[in-house]
Amino acid sequence: MRFTPALQELIDALCCLPGVGPRSAQRMSLHLLERDREAAKILADALVNAMDKIQHCGRCRNFSEQELCEICSDSKRDKSLVCVVESPAHLMAIESSGSFRGVYYVLMGQLSPIEGIGPAELGLDRFHQQILADEVSEVVLATNPTVEGEATAWYLTDLLAADGITVSRIAHGVPLGGELDYVDGSTLAHALSSRQVVQR
Amino acid sequence: MRFTPALQELIDALCCLPGVGPRSAQRMSLHLLERDREAAKILADALVNAMDKIQHCGRCRNFSEQELCEICSDSKRDKSLVCVVESPAHLMAIESSGSFRGVYYVLMGQLSPIEGIGPAELGLDRFHQQILADEVSEVVLATNPTVEGEATAWYLTDLLAADGITVSRIAHGVPLGGELDYVDGSTLAHALSSRQVVQR
Repeated sequence: MRFTPALQELIDALCCLPGVGPRSAQRMSLHLLERDREAAKILADALVNAMDKIQHCGRCRNFSEQELCEICSDSKRDKSLVCVVESPAHLMAIESSGSFRGVYYVLMGQLSPIEGIGPAELGLDRFHQQILADEVSEVVLATNPTVEGEATAWYLTDLLAADGITVSRIAHGVPLGGELDYVDGSTLAHALSSRQVVQR
Repeated sequence: MRFTPALQELIDALCCLPGVGPRSAQRMSLHLLERDREAAKILADALVNAMDKIQHCGRCRNFSEQELCEICSDSKRDKSLVCVVESPAHLMAIESSGSFRGVYYVLMGQLSPIEGIGPAELGLDRFHQQILADEVSEVVLATNPTVEGEATAWYLTDLLAADGITVSRIAHGVPLGGELDYVDGSTLAHALSSRQVVQR
């Protein structure tokens, strides 16, 4: 017994979504067919519409439906302060903290020689030119604290520091409200070695 | 900071899938936009195609792209033995066990007066007529061992037994390979009360 061809095709197509395996894809397909055929049509339209309309911002490479994204075209944002993030999801996370009033640059990845992603793939040359042209005074690096994220941060530091631009890295350590006994060893080691003298 | 309108629309549409909340929907959308726009188009086509082509089998109500499904149109299946299941997923589960050579009837639900699902909504009248017309000798009830599933099984037993049709229920008890100490109390109680004399 196999599924009908159209159903199998739908299950296979749903499997391309991150976190969806064959069993969830089957459950999703049956749910749509049994209970919510309208939702399936809406989803199909939304997919086509999003892929057509959403392109990258010409300045920061974030997703945008216009030439420039909402942040880059906002005159209230401080253009001399640029935060570098790996993905639009990270940009969202920083934006929802409400604590950054500069602009962004979205790498859409991280340096990873093994996967063939070098400075050219991340558009770092263009980024460098843009930083110089915009007379940016500080670049905040908010790449992930992983091997690749750190490598990307080091590469950018080398690139920009030579031009006298202040390069900073967001702080890593114990999360606020976190219990020390639930924090992993390497985070604790980092938090200890980056300790700061308390001013009174 | 909000997502662009087309992106927000895609996230909302993905939330209609079972097991997908706003955060997974966001991750899925960004994944498709960043890495796999081709897959998004394929998924959109598969959705439209499946909703257009897949209808219900005229006999057993399982999903089918033809008037009769693969099982109902198979001359090798024993048409005098009918297994009643709640959904196509349950039919699949029994089929993959490879131990049933009869045909099926898919209720597409279970009796649930609270949700307004009565015998008419499950097509039980038509099912009754069909069983009589096809001269079925045995109906195997494989509804879920839940309150609603049991109620559905009892209703069908009453309906069919009056016509002298053998009605059976699949066995419930301790799963093969299951450890007794991991089996819940009500399953154990059922297994004990349904014990069978061992023949030697």
